[in-house]
Amino acid sequence: MGHDLISAPTTHVADHREPRFVHEDQEAAASAKLAALEERTGKKPNVLVVLMDDVGWGDFGCYGGGVMVGAPTPNIDRLAREGLLLTSAYSEPSCTPSRASIMTGRLPMRHGLLIPPMYGMPGGLEGEVVLPDLLSRAGYVTQAVGKWHMGENLASQPQHVGFDDFYGFLSVSDMYTEWRDPYFFPEVVYSDERTEWVRNERFNKCWVHATRGEDPENVEEVTIPVLSTLDDRWAAYSEDFIRRMAGNERPWFLYHCTRGAHFDNYPLERFQGSSPAKHPYKDTIVELDDIVGRLVAALEETGQADNTLVFISSDNGPEMETWPDAAYTPFRCAKGSTWEGGVRVPAVFSWPGMIEPAATDGIFDQLDLFATMLHLAGADDLVPDDRFVDAIDQTSFLLGGGGLSNRKFHYYWLTATFSAIRVAEYKYMIASITDDDTDVVNSGGFSGVLQQYGYGKMFNLYLDPKEQHSYLIRKLVYIELIQSAMARHRRTFQAWPNRPAMIDSPRG
Amino acid sequence: MGHDLISAPTTHVADHREPRFVHEDQEAAASAKLAALEERTGKKPNVLVVLMDDVGWGDFGCYGGGVMVGAPTPNIDRLAREGLLLTSAYSEPSCTPSRASIMTGRLPMRHGLLIPPMYGMPGGLEGEVVLPDLLSRAGYVTQAVGKWHMGENLASQPQHVGFDDFYGFLSVSDMYTEWRDPYFFPEVVYSDERTEWVRNERFNKCWVHATRGEDPENVEEVTIPVLSTLDDRWAAYSEDFIRRMAGNERPWFLYHCTRGAHFDNYPLERFQGSSPAKHPYKDTIVELDDIVGRLVAALEETGQADNTLVFISSDNGPEMETWPDAAYTPFRCAKGSTWEGGVRVPAVFSWPGMIEPAATDGIFDQLDLFATMLHLAGADDLVPDDRFVDAIDQTSFLLGGGGLSNRKFHYYWLTATFSAIRVAEYKYMIASITDDDTDVVNSGGFSGVLQQYGYGKMFNLYLDPKEQHSYLIRKLVYIELIQSAMARHRRTFQAWPNRPAMIDSPRG
Repeated sequence: MGHDLISAPTTHVADHREPRFVHEDQEAAASAKLAALEERTGKKPNVLVVLMDDVGWGDFGCYGGGVMVGAPTPNIDRLAREGLLLTSAYSEPSCTPSRASIMTGRLPMRHGLLIPPMYGMPGGLEGEVVLPDLLSRAGYVTQAVGKWHMGENLASQPQHVGFDDFYGFLSVSDMYTEWRDPYFFPEVVYSDERTEWVRNERFNKCWVHATRGEDPENVEEVTIPVLSTLDDRWAAYSEDFIRRMAGNERPWFLYHCTRGAHFDNYPLERFQGSSPAKHPYKDTIVELDDIVGRLVAALEETGQADNTLVFISSDNGPEMETWPDAAYTPFRCAKGSTWEGGVRVPAVFSWPGMIEPAATDGIFDQLDLFATMLHLAGADDLVPDDRFVDAIDQTSFLLGGGGLSNRKFHYYWLTATFSAIRVAEYKYMIASITDDDTDVVNSGGFSGVLQQYGYGKMFNLYLDPKEQHSYLIRKLVYIELIQSAMARHRRTFQAWPNRPAMIDSPRG
Repeated sequence: MGHDLISAPTTHVADHREPRFVHEDQEAAASAKLAALEERTGKKPNVLVVLMDDVGWGDFGCYGGGVMVGAPTPNIDRLAREGLLLTSAYSEPSCTPSRASIMTGRLPMRHGLLIPPMYGMPGGLEGEVVLPDLLSRAGYVTQAVGKWHMGENLASQPQHVGFDDFYGFLSVSDMYTEWRDPYFFPEVVYSDERTEWVRNERFNKCWVHATRGEDPENVEEVTIPVLSTLDDRWAAYSEDFIRRMAGNERPWFLYHCTRGAHFDNYPLERFQGSSPAKHPYKDTIVELDDIVGRLVAALEETGQADNTLVFISSDNGPEMETWPDAAYTPFRCAKGSTWEGGVRVPAVFSWPGMIEPAATDGIFDQLDLFATMLHLAGADDLVPDDRFVDAIDQTSFLLGGGGLSNRKFHYYWLTATFSAIRVAEYKYMIASITDDDTDVVNSGGFSGVLQQYGYGKMFNLYLDPKEQHSYLIRKLVYIELIQSAMARHRRTFQAWPNRPAMIDSPRG
């Protein structure tokens, strides 16, 4: 393209916004496409986000996984082949920070949800300006299905932050079942006192249904047999939503978050042993791929595919501390780290007629969905201006056909520590979690030690995707540009103070 | 398929042959396809093998590389999309052993070419029964182009082991140029005496042209500027061969071995800076992909595509000791090792109308090409019976549509050390080269220390493609089957004695 990602200037959008690349040709092409579509359909486009849990960059066939890791993913591979496959899409290092960043368009250090709230910890999205609320104001029907995990307190629940309806559980898979499984928690299962103690912990043991503004209603206690059916039942609920929306004059946003493939995986009976690998993790990947197929089929059968942006992704890298119930990434380290293995996630966009088939390494931060979806909704003006917003409108990256991201820098944060920055193929890292140094094993990020680097490490992610060869000393020419960008990023936190962190260590 | 790769029995073919899986449905389907094709064309099919040098499993887009590593490969990706992409194809740990195994259908411990001959070392293929000679006897026109590196002595040269014509160099890329480059060898470049000394080393500094049974003729000395043009000129030669063969009544075998992407890479001028990564290695990958496009176009334009099996692969894993002039693999370690990073290679088969589009994890050893090509040539009876032949006829795996390999076991040898065995997703390793243990870096295999394991390591390559978690103690149920297979394999070396190793350490 003749466009150099390091030297090209970005455009200042507003003091409280991350600057963005403006590629004029792509912008024009995307606008023309959107205008023609709206002319034809008479409304703004729908958006289906399918967010999986702890699934790895490498799990799907289109990313070099699939049959190689014993779990074919034909439905997702097809979407990738016919859509846009992103190779440099980023989440945060763990679940809740990633999800809350999508909902707010802001980094965890701003919205304060730095780590996943577990077993009834207080706090959540409450008080933030949240995507479904803004989309509702822009006329969207908003539906959340599946995992939430952005606060169990009422004001942080989906039906209180802008979703018309919610059908799922409020926390995270393992919390409902690990203490029920004698393999993992014999000391609870075989002790009435311990079982009773867990039961009295302040979290809801049931999954729920809730409608806008109301209290949630318990559907059922999440035992292990119930857990194994959840993804199937949630998919049916979303299929039903999609079918009901056909012909609706309002556009819709469906936020479908799967239970799988978070440990511990107990796949639906008909998927047990269905993968070549025959491990519950891999069977769950097959099940999740099947669910993607079901949701897309519902779109196609109801004639809504052409007017619906579909996004398939995961909330962070593989959780390796629970191996072999674990995902696969070719990258270094895992969930809980800012090595690529922790935060680089599969990301496939599909929109027949609007997105051209391609693979691109353009940088995409999942929180960009916030600004991108508001742009698609014609609601740029709803982006809040009383706080800093990190999200960049990536509409023209997705629709413009040129393959150029609108994002110049990706910022890696490890809870409250600024860890690294990426520009083009370069990643400069000043702090990170160690891998387990008792072996060459890349174990889980949560087990590591936080290290600060004296001079930083510089990786070239094209030549060294596994981050094994720091060659800062050879690439000092870029250091001024990179450190300026880091300083600029730091200053946004002074100019626009954060919320206090909701939680920064379990139980203080 | 309901076919369990661990428990299913293999069929004894002959005492001197590796047993094979016989999948009746696939066998019948493949035979029917071949018969119909021969009926239509009146001859046996052509075979084009494109063997690249030190290219990694992950380099191509279809394996999760491509734009992710800064080097798009649209031509190879298209072949993979329309053909058969193998995720578990194996080479030997380095160049010459891999190539000689394809030529002989035998493991390096049998043919004796255990390491690459460098700078004029004696010995080579001479004395082995070699594929091009057998194909010649079966009526094929045989052409070798590009890198040879299976012996520079006359009797081991391509035109003396069955090729009608050879156009390329007899050794390996770096040997011609590294001592000419002041960056790598200032002590040679800036010393007349040293330069003179290298010039007098017993290897040909020129690339050559040769015709069956003759002495080779020097074409030109391989200086750095010449080196950068070789792949382009060799591709033109192969294109010309393909075009000349159109309408020929005899089938043909074209063995096209690229110079790239072996270190040191000096891509053709028009490819310099052509990749997003802009590194010479990545530019070379773009050039190689373009060459694949040219060769396939020649097949298509001359109407030979439907009658030609195309195979694209590499001779071993990435050479990481020359990083950043290096390939990419998601697997552990690199060239020179029997970790997956050293021996698991990209492998795409394409044959329009004969091979159905699919990805498969079935095990394929590159040396299987020997028996497979002889079967396609209708020359099973030419497989020698005076020595052990490891090659398995994989015709029905490729053409039968069921995706089931005809190979049950893969045997990993590290020069003269039996290192590991794979069956289905399990790899049992008894010896290996260490990774560099001063860091978590997976450095080059050649730098490692040979380790023997007291009890072996057991990896599940589906759950743990990066070989980080040995769980032998949990999978002991398979150990009897695996050790029996290893013992059976060892016994073949007693029943069928090896040739003496050609070379097992440089300069003794």
